Amino acid sequence: VKTFQAEHKLRTAGGLTVTDITEDVQEAVRRSGITDGICSVYSAHTTCSVRVNEWERGFLEDFAVLLKRLVPTERYSAHDERPTENTAPEHAQRVGIGNRRALCMSMLLGPPGESIPVRDGELSLGTWQRVLFLELDPERDGHWLVQVDGV
Amino acid sequence: VKTFQAEHKLRTAGGLTVTDITEDVQEAVRRSGITDGICSVYSAHTTCSVRVNEWERGFLEDFAVLLKRLVPTERYSAHDERPTENTAPEHAQRVGIGNRRALCMSMLLGPPGESIPVRDGELSLGTWQRVLFLELDPERDGHWLVQVDGV
Amino acid sequence: VKTFQAEHKLRTAGGLTVTDITEDVQEAVRRSGITDGICSVYSAHTTCSVRVNEWERGFLEDFAVLLKRLVPTERYSAHDERPTENTAPEHAQRVGIGNRRALCMSMLLGPPGESIPVRDGELSLGTWQRVLFLELDPERDGHWLVQVDGV
Repeated sequence: VKTFQAEHKLRTAGGLTVTDITEDVQEAVRRSGITDGICSVYSAHTTCSVRVNEWERGFLEDFAVLLKRLVPTERYSAHDERPTENTAPEHAQRVGIGNRRALCMSMLLGPPGESIPVRDGELSLGTWQRVLFLELDPERDGHWLVQVDGV
Repeated sequence: VKTFQAEHKLRTAGGLTVTDITEDVQEAVRRSGITDGICSVYSAHTTCSVRVNEWERGFLEDFAVLLKRLVPTERYSAHDERPTENTAPEHAQRVGIGNRRALCMSMLLGPPGESIPVRDGELSLGTWQRVLFLELDPERDGHWLVQVDGV
Repeated sequence: VKTFQAEHKLRTAGGLTVTDITEDVQEAVRRSGITDGICSVYSAHTTCSVRVNEWERGFLEDFAVLLKRLVPTERYSAHDERPTENTAPEHAQRVGIGNRRALCMSMLLGPPGESIPVRDGELSLGTWQRVLFLELDPERDGHWLVQVDGV
């Protein structure tokens, strides 16, 4: 039984951009030498999510429109001016850029990470499934963790 | 430490139908011989999700109405006529049947799978929790994976 | 390779209150003696969810408002009078208090639990990430499970 861990950095473009990280995740599985187990892909950001779904630009554009409509801007602007906790300067800066809206979006998206079964050394992704990294905040440096546990 | 894997096929009825797969998942845990660990149940489809929640028809009907209202039809019909990626014939056929709407629904539902603790050889489900397989696309053949890791 | 399990009880305040359980989860990781692996935090309730996100009151208030707007009350009241399954008296009581609305909310939140990588004996949480326990139903006694698997 083995445990393998790695971290990947990426620069996001902001504005609900989506990055296809499937190849990097699959490469981590290969390097782990694990053939059967679970691969966890995890975003350590509150406003970025890792999600398994289809990589198709039209769908992702539609989804961005949908998410912006479900979580409209106006209702967060007041709160964003006066953070109630985490009042460190770098956080105050974050909430000033509409951060609470991005947090609400990430709640609707679900957990920050995904757990994908590994079989015969490959991710058990279906035909159209890809591992996607979604940025809900403006452009910035981000990173994600990958962990493979198994035999 | 052991790893156990199995695959289950099912025919879905389409139209946000929900199948209760709890007994099959529990049976897989029993066959695994694992008494303490984690059970991962995973849908390898972009438009089917495995979710732990209550099996109660009134709730599931309400939820289907809610999801259709949150993700309305009209806004996807144009895109669905011209896929931007994955233009293989079988995919073009998929998008022709409103596939992008189902993809957006699956994004709101969260990850395609669930991870459930296993204790004393049993899934740690609460009194009302069941393992549900949700079909967001029309009727078809689907499958789900179950993996149990533990001792 | 080890597996560690624990259960924590808590009294929720109801009405979309959120409890920060990060310290208890981290304490469980410490007690497990596991330095590298996966920590699963799981709610065994259909109307409570464990979610990793920011602990900031303004955001959590905004999210409560958003969720109530996305899942309005009126459409569930009729169904709540006549449960279609699980008609045990304690369940009938539950559905009588608007339980189906809480179930729909939990579906939008995603899975009942989270899987968080553990490295060097610590949860791999980002700067602003906390482990949150969300109560979608009225005040009551609840509990959550934590399981750590690794080396």
